[in-house]
Amino acid sequence: MSGGAPAGSAGVTELFQLLRDGAPRTRAQLAQATGLARSTVAARVDELMRMGLIAPVADAVSTGGRPSSQFALNPGGRVMGAVDIGASHATVALIDLVGSVLEKVSEPLDVAEGPVAVLERVVAMLHDLLSRTGRTERDLAAIGVGLPGPVLHSTGQPINPPIMPGWDRFDVPGWMAQHLDAPALVDNDVNLMALGECAVGWRDTEHLIFVKVATGIGAGVISGGRLLRGAQGVAGDLGHVRVARGADVPCHCGSRGCLEALASGPAIARTLRERGIDAHSSDDVVDLVKHNSIDAIHAVRQAGRDIGEVLTASVSLLNPSVIAIGGSMARVGEHLIAGVREVVYTRSTPLATERLAIVHSTAAEDAAVIGAGVLALEHALSPETLHRIVGV
Amino acid sequence: MSGGAPAGSAGVTELFQLLRDGAPRTRAQLAQATGLARSTVAARVDELMRMGLIAPVADAVSTGGRPSSQFALNPGGRVMGAVDIGASHATVALIDLVGSVLEKVSEPLDVAEGPVAVLERVVAMLHDLLSRTGRTERDLAAIGVGLPGPVLHSTGQPINPPIMPGWDRFDVPGWMAQHLDAPALVDNDVNLMALGECAVGWRDTEHLIFVKVATGIGAGVISGGRLLRGAQGVAGDLGHVRVARGADVPCHCGSRGCLEALASGPAIARTLRERGIDAHSSDDVVDLVKHNSIDAIHAVRQAGRDIGEVLTASVSLLNPSVIAIGGSMARVGEHLIAGVREVVYTRSTPLATERLAIVHSTAAEDAAVIGAGVLALEHALSPETLHRIVGV
Repeated sequence: MSGGAPAGSAGVTELFQLLRDGAPRTRAQLAQATGLARSTVAARVDELMRMGLIAPVADAVSTGGRPSSQFALNPGGRVMGAVDIGASHATVALIDLVGSVLEKVSEPLDVAEGPVAVLERVVAMLHDLLSRTGRTERDLAAIGVGLPGPVLHSTGQPINPPIMPGWDRFDVPGWMAQHLDAPALVDNDVNLMALGECAVGWRDTEHLIFVKVATGIGAGVISGGRLLRGAQGVAGDLGHVRVARGADVPCHCGSRGCLEALASGPAIARTLRERGIDAHSSDDVVDLVKHNSIDAIHAVRQAGRDIGEVLTASVSLLNPSVIAIGGSMARVGEHLIAGVREVVYTRSTPLATERLAIVHSTAAEDAAVIGAGVLALEHALSPETLHRIVGV
Repeated sequence: MSGGAPAGSAGVTELFQLLRDGAPRTRAQLAQATGLARSTVAARVDELMRMGLIAPVADAVSTGGRPSSQFALNPGGRVMGAVDIGASHATVALIDLVGSVLEKVSEPLDVAEGPVAVLERVVAMLHDLLSRTGRTERDLAAIGVGLPGPVLHSTGQPINPPIMPGWDRFDVPGWMAQHLDAPALVDNDVNLMALGECAVGWRDTEHLIFVKVATGIGAGVISGGRLLRGAQGVAGDLGHVRVARGADVPCHCGSRGCLEALASGPAIARTLRERGIDAHSSDDVVDLVKHNSIDAIHAVRQAGRDIGEVLTASVSLLNPSVIAIGGSMARVGEHLIAGVREVVYTRSTPLATERLAIVHSTAAEDAAVIGAGVLALEHALSPETLHRIVGV
């Protein structure tokens, strides 16, 4: 609880933190555990019930029809909207207060149609999921939104997103607030993939780097259990770091030798075309590798080495325990990861790589939407949110 | 407050967090602001006074001799020991509850004498500072200790420290506990330098990388306002990352091409000797640069480029706002930093470097001891510590 919390909400965080474990407690037990005045406990319990976060629980011993005197977390009392907008699809899900996916839907959607067309479709998809699960907009506590480009998380605005015409500095949370009665938190999709990967595959890991390799290349970094966003909120932008061997390769960003110009799906396809092989996309490269094309396997392995080169110093600097590789190029199997391992294990320090796992993403194509749910949940249950709602 | 906090200490963190701002408050104001029961407030105020953390304040309006009914933070009520052990010196300081240095002393001390000899000397220095300031051991709330090698922060043990014979896995906190009545927190000196640099030069910065360039090379990383320690607690170990141009240069660690083998003070001196110039240490290199030796200036600039090469991807990955360069080699002036800037600004992504400052350390030789004080202070005032002391 911060010193600046309004007195009118005093104790709400302490009470809710106790109840998050799911165990039922009486008002007297809550007062004793927190030191809060009994009158404060009674008022906060009522407010948390009104918010749908906790609910009365049937007593262990029957009390002959008296109202329950125990309270516990109410997992389904509110829901979070989780939205993953990709270059050519949107996936929308509802999750409950313990992070379980209640319902999910995915459909093709071209992000280049611009923010209004895309977000209108997303809102319609959310309404559809709400009605399918017998809920209304008022049950939404928060919405997490992932976008395929750089986002200033603090304002929720995309910043010069290369594949998103019309989205530059568009006020996504502001637009969403006009169309849904819940706050929207926006982040780039790779940050959310890192959150989702931790939630699905590595709950005990506090130090994970998620690398998405697809049409672009980017990373999400979790250290000490927290997503790192950096000073301007653009942490993780590995795609345009220069790789020594590519000094003469032009990148679509205007620079030369960028990792993305050497190791993304389209870049590998271009390398293969130069050798007379018909390949134009990540999918083509994946197909060639699956059919044992030696040229494709070599090119993918080299792309892995390039990614490893860019990661090597970061591994010594951050000492992660997991590097998870995801994105459409991860479907090539072990060849990409073998290249990453080859360079990282050779060039990083022994102490930093001693227990480092470099693996395929476990959450795979659901990583971003699950991460969007995590982002929304963290916001909905944060002390600041609870204080604001109760303090009003 | 965590759900696992003992009920006997309930409310202590909330009360102390309020009082940390230094403003005096009555028991009634504290009860209103926190929602705690009046009896809880009275008990916690007594306990915080007994711990020396808060003290009665004279009322603004005279109350005719009645005991004060207002309480506030008591900056000098407890002190922290801050210890910076280098390869050939020890600096020890006392700091108060708001982080001010009360007294400081530094003397030559060879870390190779082993843990017992070195720590006995440090304890004597601490006792000396306590008596000089009219205090006793009982006034010590915690001690922060920086060591010039890798440390597992969770256990406080040095791990294979190359320049510290006899220290490998030595139980520093355990030994200190037998000789002083206060918990000791141990970390490597570069992590503490990052904390100290933030405290002295960049209070508004939450994203800083401190790079120490001396006999060795290492880094401390602060992101989102927190020191990153990594999965095994060895984050920041940049000295043994491989640099492409040095593939054939052997390093004392047994590998080849390590940054430390190319860009440390002794490595630059070796480069100069190969050109027939008499140089053997960081000091010699600094002297040559100060006397405008073109060879020395070129060698230092190249060392800066090598450091920049290792930092470049980390800058895009972490998006820091400050890179501070410290350590004895930083005394060469702008030439080293110019090399770092040249590579980082060229090879990292524009968004990540747009507002990045690459500068000399502000805290300079005091960075580590100030950081040790910050470490001790954070521990002494942490919710866990308050709960443990009050809950006993």
